[in-house]
Amino acid sequence: MELLEQRIRQDGVVKGDDVLKVDSFLNHQMDIALFEEIGGEFYRRFAGCGVDKILTIEASGIGIACITAQFFHCPVVFAKKSQTRNIAGGLFTTKVESFTHGKVYDVIVSQQFLGPEDTVLIIDDFLANGAALEGLIDLVEQSGAKLAGAGIVIEKAFQPGGSRIRAKGVRVESLARIRSMSEERGIEFEDQDLGG
Amino acid sequence: MELLEQRIRQDGVVKGDDVLKVDSFLNHQMDIALFEEIGGEFYRRFAGCGVDKILTIEASGIGIACITAQFFHCPVVFAKKSQTRNIAGGLFTTKVESFTHGKVYDVIVSQQFLGPEDTVLIIDDFLANGAALEGLIDLVEQSGAKLAGAGIVIEKAFQPGGSRIRAKGVRVESLARIRSMSEERGIEFEDQDLGG
Repeated sequence: MELLEQRIRQDGVVKGDDVLKVDSFLNHQMDIALFEEIGGEFYRRFAGCGVDKILTIEASGIGIACITAQFFHCPVVFAKKSQTRNIAGGLFTTKVESFTHGKVYDVIVSQQFLGPEDTVLIIDDFLANGAALEGLIDLVEQSGAKLAGAGIVIEKAFQPGGSRIRAKGVRVESLARIRSMSEERGIEFEDQDLGG
Repeated sequence: MELLEQRIRQDGVVKGDDVLKVDSFLNHQMDIALFEEIGGEFYRRFAGCGVDKILTIEASGIGIACITAQFFHCPVVFAKKSQTRNIAGGLFTTKVESFTHGKVYDVIVSQQFLGPEDTVLIIDDFLANGAALEGLIDLVEQSGAKLAGAGIVIEKAFQPGGSRIRAKGVRVESLARIRSMSEERGIEFEDQDLGG
């Protein structure tokens, strides 16, 4: 997605060889006009798949998921990173290792909001090692819902998550796929037509 | 806001005398069509205040804030509940006590995204004891930004947060104000015209 790649080149900040800071427009301050373009592009790619629920994970996936849901006219469910007192009843639970925070945490979704009648599109801001996405896929599988695929804003294609998850047969659509990056050379994207 | 009160009566679940579960439409599964109505109502109340930034706190405020921002054509910044490795530079920091989780946590916003040039509308899903809202107000004050006010979806008006914060001169607009609730008697709302 050309507009997104331009924005990443313009406002993204590379730290070392594997950290890309996009907190000026994606995951701390959020550019809602850009999110509308992103949501429209996810809709273009997944229209006709029967998506009737979007699943994301707190916190930075929520905004993109909500704007995307406007195109699909469906609700969003966000998976929570720990059990809170106010969730009653049965839970689907999985474990996700965060490389950013260096710990393993439980990720949960109430069984009320995900089930065999749903066709789910997973939305998240980043795909790198794939731990969060695999956790969300696990929750969908536990629920018996149909998985339409995953829409990712930025994929670090030089990390193994995307390849591993596509090899399982999951359709992963990433709007910007970074082939390599470094502070010195900047960001190099994959050719766009290979992103499907 | 009549539509919201109807939805709370229909789908909200009261537990004991002070827990209201609205996770089927507000803060776990999210009804985006309802969020559009909520965003439009916040816009009606705060239009003309010069709002050019919306501030919320992760996680359940983010969806409502993003949809509301579409009406104001402005970005959203969400305050984070702990310091992550990927935020560089200066931070505004405050402490918030969570009654739900029974602990005190740091809440942070990058100094890059909040400053004296901004006119800020705070958006959150719940107002009860007021700890989260006071934390967000503190962040706005530290930044030197102008505070237009706070838009809250559900206020537990029988808890002290709303009164205390309004007494400081902050404009707080809550779309549904609960006067009292219990498992036996259900939910009683304040008269709507007193909500301003």
